Amino acid sequence: MGKLYVVPTPVGNLEDMTFRAIKVLKEADLILAEDTRTSGILLKHFEIKNAMQSHHKFNEHKTVESVVNKIKAGETVALISDAGTPEYPIRVFW
Amino acid sequence: MGKLYVVPTPVGNLEDMTFRAIKVLKEADLILAEDTRTSGILLKHFEIKNAMQSHHKFNEHKTVESVVNKIKAGETVALISDAGTPEYPIRVFW
Repeated sequence: MGKLYVVPTPVGNLEDMTFRAIKVLKEADLILAEDTRTSGILLKHFEIKNAMQSHHKFNEHKTVESVVNKIKAGETVALISDAGTPEYPIRVFW
Repeated sequence: MGKLYVVPTPVGNLEDMTFRAIKVLKEADLILAEDTRTSGILLKHFEIKNAMQSHHKFNEHKTVESVVNKIKAGETVALISDAGTPEYPIRVFW
């Protein structure tokens, strides 16, 4: 069984990123981002080059099954929101 | 006029430290720590070697005037608690 990490990100100042958030994102097999454009800036800033996939309330019903299957298969998935802490991982995934 | 920074620190995992917190602490003329032993571990971990002074509710009445004078003289002071965000800087300082 893999893992789903819910990772908080800065709400305004990129330097409010934590070391642990970077570590988790760099180790993830897949990063699910609410807004890939915003998160792209963050990930680039911290040289995080892992696979990123759009994941938000308008597309989650299409992708959640494949994401759950990845986790069941042992992959590590990290969920980030536009800014701050993702609010709805449990509703989305289980 | 100097500055007083209220700096949150990790509550359990040192890797939850932010880049901005490290930057502010490294630039401070004086770090006021609620518990110098606990904070010593944190500061050592991040190679922060700035002056640190004990500052808590049992000694603040003795030291607050000198701290305020330092800030008035243009120094930068950073306040950290044992863990998390310091709760009472305003009561202490003004």
